[in-house]
Amino acid sequence: MRQKGGVTEPPHAAPLQAPVIILVEPQLAENIGMAARAMANFGLSELRLVAPRDGWPKRGARSAASGAGTILDSAKLYSTAREAVADLHFVLATTARERGQMKRVLGPEPALREIYARTAAGQVAGVLFGRERTGLENDEVALADAVMTFPVNPAFASINLAQAVLLVAYEWFKAADGGLPFAGGMRSPPATRDSILSFFDYFEAELDAVNFYPLDKKPVMARNMRDMFLRMAMSEQDVRTLRGAVRAIAEGRRLRRTD
Amino acid sequence: MRQKGGVTEPPHAAPLQAPVIILVEPQLAENIGMAARAMANFGLSELRLVAPRDGWPKRGARSAASGAGTILDSAKLYSTAREAVADLHFVLATTARERGQMKRVLGPEPALREIYARTAAGQVAGVLFGRERTGLENDEVALADAVMTFPVNPAFASINLAQAVLLVAYEWFKAADGGLPFAGGMRSPPATRDSILSFFDYFEAELDAVNFYPLDKKPVMARNMRDMFLRMAMSEQDVRTLRGAVRAIAEGRRLRRTD
Repeated sequence: MRQKGGVTEPPHAAPLQAPVIILVEPQLAENIGMAARAMANFGLSELRLVAPRDGWPKRGARSAASGAGTILDSAKLYSTAREAVADLHFVLATTARERGQMKRVLGPEPALREIYARTAAGQVAGVLFGRERTGLENDEVALADAVMTFPVNPAFASINLAQAVLLVAYEWFKAADGGLPFAGGMRSPPATRDSILSFFDYFEAELDAVNFYPLDKKPVMARNMRDMFLRMAMSEQDVRTLRGAVRAIAEGRRLRRTD
Repeated sequence: MRQKGGVTEPPHAAPLQAPVIILVEPQLAENIGMAARAMANFGLSELRLVAPRDGWPKRGARSAASGAGTILDSAKLYSTAREAVADLHFVLATTARERGQMKRVLGPEPALREIYARTAAGQVAGVLFGRERTGLENDEVALADAVMTFPVNPAFASINLAQAVLLVAYEWFKAADGGLPFAGGMRSPPATRDSILSFFDYFEAELDAVNFYPLDKKPVMARNMRDMFLRMAMSEQDVRTLRGAVRAIAEGRRLRRTD
């Protein structure tokens, strides 16, 4: 039974369920395995296979899955795409070309944002992927609420099946607010403006001591130099390190001179 | 020579150049080929290889590239990462884990937006990818302006090399305003409100003729029915088709009755 379509009407209160990936008559074991790996990378777990060519399991899928074997083990088999989407509330069909169907066409980013909103409202969504060579048949596309296609170079538009799954999984993780595994490396707190300006004064005094700046050009050159250092977004530690480096060179020169 | 760093200072007026992809000691021919295919999908063309294991060209890369052989043919070989980035103005290093380096850490989307902005200002950017098993060495990461990492499921964080290249290429194409290859399929113009309301009146009259609505529930049921049809976002053609379908059923019934 189809949902009424609004995202405001949760059919049940299940926990957030990542979208189901449905591969229709996939041909190559490597693609199924790589698709499973891509799913695992981005927190998807439910894989459905519609009549895989040459049966299932397929030799080679597990090694391509590179550790995501549990997704392959729990993959469900169906004989038609219609059966594979029967229990879903929202279905997207991926296609590389226009099908002349009266459906919305979405790129992966807005598509997965919509799936996320529906999922958060308790719906279960799925994405249909077609055969490697020929894609989905028109009757299979017709099962979907909307079409998803990829923004690609028109001169080279054929995306590998597992890579298409990867883009969907990646946009899911982004839509679900998945963060980066680690953040930037400012260990020392950012320098205060006073530390930075005091370093500039010290540095310019050392440069003046060796007549680095031609007198008439000094104002502009010194400002440009300050801008270079400001672009470093220095931490307190950076300022101490730089000051130490300048002092070491200056004093080394003075020591050498007195030798 | 390094650029001063600002995106407002174009070093030359070259045409927009997509970022260079640099694979450091890639091990598997399939990954190099699949990376080339992913590049071609999203309009990247310049591939650099630093000391590929077992030499170059590699057997198997071309078939994995699936038509993107020209990218492999024009790939440039380097012996160190430092040489491979020498002519670039902005360099990102991809890593899956913290390296303790004082660099900004960016996800692919903001990273490629920044690359796009710099590219539009005439800079040439590149992205470094490490070895399949061990990634980039710390000295190689140190060559970069910033680190890129992928938002991934921490429990399954290992992304395939070619799939990492794909995500970068995909975000480049998105940042460069690459559109979808086709748009939605409304061939007939959207229906005017008058056509829709007139269809509702007709439909409800037919339903009244067969006493479909219990009198006390009619207002709510009819409004819900109208909402269902409004969610269809009907075109003029849709309205005509629906009206014809309702009429056919209604008249078929009347015809049968008079038999």
